Amino acid sequence: MNKTSQTNEKPAFVLWFTGLSGAGKSTLADRVYERLTQSGRPIERLDGDSLRAAFPATGFSRKDRDEHIKRVGYMASRLEHHGVIVVASFISPYREARDFVRKLCRNFVEVYVDASLETCRKRDVKGLYKKAMAGQIQSFTGLDDPYEEPQHPEIIVKTDQQSIDQSEKTILDYIQRYL
Amino acid sequence: MNKTSQTNEKPAFVLWFTGLSGAGKSTLADRVYERLTQSGRPIERLDGDSLRAAFPATGFSRKDRDEHIKRVGYMASRLEHHGVIVVASFISPYREARDFVRKLCRNFVEVYVDASLETCRKRDVKGLYKKAMAGQIQSFTGLDDPYEEPQHPEIIVKTDQQSIDQSEKTILDYIQRYL
Repeated sequence: MNKTSQTNEKPAFVLWFTGLSGAGKSTLADRVYERLTQSGRPIERLDGDSLRAAFPATGFSRKDRDEHIKRVGYMASRLEHHGVIVVASFISPYREARDFVRKLCRNFVEVYVDASLETCRKRDVKGLYKKAMAGQIQSFTGLDDPYEEPQHPEIIVKTDQQSIDQSEKTILDYIQRYL
Repeated sequence: MNKTSQTNEKPAFVLWFTGLSGAGKSTLADRVYERLTQSGRPIERLDGDSLRAAFPATGFSRKDRDEHIKRVGYMASRLEHHGVIVVASFISPYREARDFVRKLCRNFVEVYVDASLETCRKRDVKGLYKKAMAGQIQSFTGLDDPYEEPQHPEIIVKTDQQSIDQSEKTILDYIQRYL
């Protein structure tokens, strides 16, 4: 249906960070994004917090989360189709929604940002776990809403065992094939 | 936040067709899209029917329509940002949602595909008016749900008074500035 517009010979790809709140998705995605911008390739950064700010009506029910992730994934796939590298960071807790996005994309690189719930709770950078445990937030991933771990992610980084630098290096090493 | 990736010196733009069901949005958008593909510019076609097929959970309440149009518009604006011309056809009945999209885009060209309700009812290409009037479809634009006409569209084509060829020419003449 749509005309391809690869402006590079190198293929674009969608680098999709998934994991619990506080696992380090956005931090790592921001770092990798900054690094990739130096390549001069067209690139787009999509992040859960900023997309939810743009679409405040998005709730946290399974239906709302699924619809949100699928639509963001569709956008990522169309950008990829036109030669834009996409760096996306979303909790995206449900396997089926992530696999929906994977199927839309040509080169989908799933990065499982793995940190234990205990670690994320302790970090609690945004104070969300505290609120959730106080009952002020419902359907919180890892507490009263499930996180379905990726079964075959392209990359796993264990941010409670390795440094941010190490995690970043693991990701950059993997995506060299597209650069 | 995002790196610009204009691959052409010519600016991209978002050509947004709005109007009643049966007014001729998709027909005209398909024609203009085909013509534009000959330019070799990167281009994306977004259509109401195919997007709703991809996201079947999208309903027809005001909230659902608004969310749908805003998200599609966001996608259009990101594609435009990366130098992709977007040809979009959606009933998009609410002014506020269309203006939301306009503000996101750099070059937003609103095409009001204007045909009277009477004409659209008579055409009824998809048999939807018949179903709506039989009460089998609720919240149908123009019947029990409003269509808010654009107040300052860049282009108006009156498909009940001019031929498809004439309408197509009106649109192509306008967008020459971007080609």
